[in-house]
Amino acid sequence: MKNIDVCLTPDLLHLHKDTLENSIVVVADVFRATSCMVTAFAHGVDCIVPVATIEECRQWQERGYYGAAERNAKMVEGFELNNSPFSYMDERLRGAKIAMTTTNGTLAITRSRNAVKVMVGSFLNLEAIARYLRSQSYDVLVLCAGWKGRPNLEDTLFAGALIERLKEEYSMMEDSAIMAWRMYNQGKNNLPHFLANSSHIRRLQRLGIHKDITYCLQHDLFDVVPVLRGNALVCIEA
Amino acid sequence: MKNIDVCLTPDLLHLHKDTLENSIVVVADVFRATSCMVTAFAHGVDCIVPVATIEECRQWQERGYYGAAERNAKMVEGFELNNSPFSYMDERLRGAKIAMTTTNGTLAITRSRNAVKVMVGSFLNLEAIARYLRSQSYDVLVLCAGWKGRPNLEDTLFAGALIERLKEEYSMMEDSAIMAWRMYNQGKNNLPHFLANSSHIRRLQRLGIHKDITYCLQHDLFDVVPVLRGNALVCIEA
Repeated sequence: MKNIDVCLTPDLLHLHKDTLENSIVVVADVFRATSCMVTAFAHGVDCIVPVATIEECRQWQERGYYGAAERNAKMVEGFELNNSPFSYMDERLRGAKIAMTTTNGTLAITRSRNAVKVMVGSFLNLEAIARYLRSQSYDVLVLCAGWKGRPNLEDTLFAGALIERLKEEYSMMEDSAIMAWRMYNQGKNNLPHFLANSSHIRRLQRLGIHKDITYCLQHDLFDVVPVLRGNALVCIEA
Repeated sequence: MKNIDVCLTPDLLHLHKDTLENSIVVVADVFRATSCMVTAFAHGVDCIVPVATIEECRQWQERGYYGAAERNAKMVEGFELNNSPFSYMDERLRGAKIAMTTTNGTLAITRSRNAVKVMVGSFLNLEAIARYLRSQSYDVLVLCAGWKGRPNLEDTLFAGALIERLKEEYSMMEDSAIMAWRMYNQGKNNLPHFLANSSHIRRLQRLGIHKDITYCLQHDLFDVVPVLRGNALVCIEA
């Protein structure tokens, strides 16, 4: 039986270095980086290059890429794209190439490069990811992007949601996976309510983006499977 | 209002270094280091020196201390004391001095030295710890010892149990604390059942120590408050 494990924050990724090379990593930064990426692919974006710094993002922009930069949950000036998923529902982005840097999500992606495959997950493409993973023979590690090294509730809930979808085919051997799965089952009937007191929700609510939160918690909106190929995320057929 | 936070494993302690100096740290290694310590104090032990290595433990032993050493959940040869709490229920230990090294718990204690105070928590002395903390003006950080750097279920549940006791006087600002508290409330009516699939329970059950697990999950058996003074844990009046 395949195994599914959860790394609650990139600051604990060192604990998985022996298994990373034999696992598919699913990176989740539900609020909002990976939800933005999934939305972008669902609207026809060609590729997304996750980069670590704002400077790198500018360099890609100079080569004709659309730029998207976020720090501390706010958009950085001088880039075309917002860090709200709604800004990716744009016909002009069909076929576009994007460079993106965010506080947590893009870093989690670039730090997982040694894995068999790096995929991007969100509630929006939960079943698409689950279906793809079922077709593969590898173990799975869900990497929660967290917030500046700290575990967070929303990405942990995503990990639990993915486990719930895969629990017939995968075993969960480690407590982080058990915790994520239990947490999701406790909150799944009303995720917005369950998340109401979380630190990031409070952070985002101060920014007045309640609409983004509600949107990002919807399950299975899009049938897209973004994977890292070289330095770019591309969408593959599930 | 005072704040209570949770660090799910010593491998995330770097995230708390700015607040550690203004916080009381409660270290929990429920299975079984801190439960052993609390049991020892409840049975009249004078002090317990937590040490990092087996070699150090031997050196203290040569100075007349009782030695207790555990690695990978098993007792190390050549020391008087077992790593089962039942081995501390011994009249001969009244007034004794003990040196102890364990896989996770003692390391978590020694790494917290910069805190205002380092205390030892377990379900066995939950209310004693809660009562002491209420009398103090400092914020609290619960440090879960985890397993070799990984978060575990039982120590997270302890953190949640302590938050449940303190929730009127303390706010929980961070998601780790919210997760621990939610997890405890989900499992509190039947902790042995809730923990049945956890990785450490499976590890311990292979060792045939079901009795220890049941014992360590009992709440409020002892009114003892162990704190670190210099290099030794001593029991203070709550």
